Amino acid sequence: MTTERSWPHPEVAADLAEVRRQAPLTHCITNRVADNFTANVLLAVGASPAMIVTAEEAKGFAALAHALLVNVGTITPPDAQAMQVAAAAAQAAGKPWVLDPVGAGALPYRTGVVTELLRHRPTIIRGNASEILAVAGAAGGGKGVESTAGSGEALPRARELAARFGSVVAVSGAVDYVTDGTEVISIPGGNALVTRVTATGCALGAVMAAAAGAGATPLRAAVAASVLFKVSAERAGRAAAGLGSFAVAFLDQLSQLGVHGDS
Amino acid sequence: MTTERSWPHPEVAADLAEVRRQAPLTHCITNRVADNFTANVLLAVGASPAMIVTAEEAKGFAALAHALLVNVGTITPPDAQAMQVAAAAAQAAGKPWVLDPVGAGALPYRTGVVTELLRHRPTIIRGNASEILAVAGAAGGGKGVESTAGSGEALPRARELAARFGSVVAVSGAVDYVTDGTEVISIPGGNALVTRVTATGCALGAVMAAAAGAGATPLRAAVAASVLFKVSAERAGRAAAGLGSFAVAFLDQLSQLGVHGDS
Amino acid sequence: MTTERSWPHPEVAADLAEVRRQAPLTHCITNRVADNFTANVLLAVGASPAMIVTAEEAKGFAALAHALLVNVGTITPPDAQAMQVAAAAAQAAGKPWVLDPVGAGALPYRTGVVTELLRHRPTIIRGNASEILAVAGAAGGGKGVESTAGSGEALPRARELAARFGSVVAVSGAVDYVTDGTEVISIPGGNALVTRVTATGCALGAVMAAAAGAGATPLRAAVAASVLFKVSAERAGRAAAGLGSFAVAFLDQLSQLGVHGDS
Repeated sequence: MTTERSWPHPEVAADLAEVRRQAPLTHCITNRVADNFTANVLLAVGASPAMIVTAEEAKGFAALAHALLVNVGTITPPDAQAMQVAAAAAQAAGKPWVLDPVGAGALPYRTGVVTELLRHRPTIIRGNASEILAVAGAAGGGKGVESTAGSGEALPRARELAARFGSVVAVSGAVDYVTDGTEVISIPGGNALVTRVTATGCALGAVMAAAAGAGATPLRAAVAASVLFKVSAERAGRAAAGLGSFAVAFLDQLSQLGVHGDS
Repeated sequence: MTTERSWPHPEVAADLAEVRRQAPLTHCITNRVADNFTANVLLAVGASPAMIVTAEEAKGFAALAHALLVNVGTITPPDAQAMQVAAAAAQAAGKPWVLDPVGAGALPYRTGVVTELLRHRPTIIRGNASEILAVAGAAGGGKGVESTAGSGEALPRARELAARFGSVVAVSGAVDYVTDGTEVISIPGGNALVTRVTATGCALGAVMAAAAGAGATPLRAAVAASVLFKVSAERAGRAAAGLGSFAVAFLDQLSQLGVHGDS
Repeated sequence: MTTERSWPHPEVAADLAEVRRQAPLTHCITNRVADNFTANVLLAVGASPAMIVTAEEAKGFAALAHALLVNVGTITPPDAQAMQVAAAAAQAAGKPWVLDPVGAGALPYRTGVVTELLRHRPTIIRGNASEILAVAGAAGGGKGVESTAGSGEALPRARELAARFGSVVAVSGAVDYVTDGTEVISIPGGNALVTRVTATGCALGAVMAAAAGAGATPLRAAVAASVLFKVSAERAGRAAAGLGSFAVAFLDQLSQLGVHGDS
């Protein structure tokens, strides 16, 4: 069953308010391109980011953090080791964790790392259609980290993937889909410019982690983050004179949405 | 004895002008989140940044650079090695160096690295209250890299720390404090939004290094950088529509303050 | 023979339009300071960036990518290994690749890495005058990564370097020069503020790679990217209130120039 979600929606507003109230400590092992932007996005939504990236610290930090994001975008072997340690610790501690399998399917090394990470049962798996298809074992065919399949095309495999690992799967695209294997929620809207600012998808996964860290169910966390990004992108698009000002306006919107009873 | 410092102040203006005049080559081994923003902040104040991050180059570069910043925010073992080499070389060459113990106290690995770095007698130690308390051997209790103690609470331990290592200690917070163990200078003002843009604290340490590299005494260097950041944040806050435009306006202010006889 | 090139120029417009049409997959192994900005610049000009930075993936990815950028700005030994693998794979596959020898000459380790990379015959070598002089075996004398020599001073050695390796050499400065050893094209204009935003030079090399990846000859690719940057910097300078807004306006201009028949 598919339902649609947009802004304002009371559950979304409540879940985002809870992030601002709790400022969940969100542990990110993400890629070099996304580190700074992801931290700024997390701060914009009221979460508390911490990029702790080495195996020596990843395990201990899982005990302190409220949620974990693992993103394999610029993975190296030491990163992979830190990710395994952190994911295992999050799973053991019952903390929510999000897997963003950037570029999975296009490159065997990272596909292998992602496959190993799946053993730790990610709470949420977020990617574009090509990445989700690749993780689900389909042929992939992505052109690097860009998606060539539409998000809707990946939906059947996304549902299977969700069911197999007990995860929520979020497929980003012109329409975002979030599924737990049974329910499917679609989030339309947004602005295509968002795909031309690097690391927006990566930051979306981080906000899903933060929302889950603040207590939202995995399904609601993924939906709240997706709706927030769609509406922020729409509003940012109205003010932008190009990609530079779009990125600035996007952060402005993320930091303002819902703060003063905004709807 | 505590004195207060704000803008315009002749010593602060003179020290910042000297940075613009000399463009001190400021060697940074900082964290992955802060690299880009720190370089842009250094360029904005007229310094010349160089992120040289590997042990193979850190020693030789210490001979060329005018000052060094070491920031352990996203530390890995190879980073730690480069930091030790660079700090030792700076100490041996009598070049000023700044230690930013991000997250110290929360995680044993980095706390150990920071403890070893202290042997090289940092010219300035800059952190939030939790980090300074942790470095001083107090209980810490920080929530990751965020400060939970107020900057004033850390002042007694900051003074002890300064006296013990012959360092200037700068505690960032709603009020910044800078002390050499005897004198205490407080810098009020600013805008709380600055704590919601990632890497501003990290960049503050870099500007302290640049000011010391341009010849300011450690106390004056730490004060000049702190005053610059407080007044830039205040002015940026007036123009901002959210966190994205605040960060842009903050860089604008840093790059303009004092350039045309501005007061 | 030296000719001058500015905007609008039909070849430049055609080469940039081709980048937008093909969205060449541009593989970057660049520095930690430049990763995010470079990805955003590539997206702004319509290319498809991929920062694949580990030796485990660099060879396989060369087969997928249309072009490669190697930039040694924050090089570490694992980076160097990935760069050698990627450059060898690009050379073997006949894919264009750009070498940006940041800081060459100032530090022996990276100078050695750059010397080894030259064996793979970079399609384009881009740097400031000090870096090009250093690569050409001259005394260098750079102050870190900043250029002290004027771009024109490096031109004779740039021509020799181009002839020796069969490369196009691009010297960035107040006037940019691009040469294949015989022909020299000068690109005046721009705005000096561009030197005070970090990673703009690094991103310029990436756009050269993208243009070559979209089929432009090496000479035309280097010229098209340089002209685009000069005119974008000029236009951005008119709107800027400081370095923060200059960087935003620069990205805006890059993303708009030539999109709607703009001249």
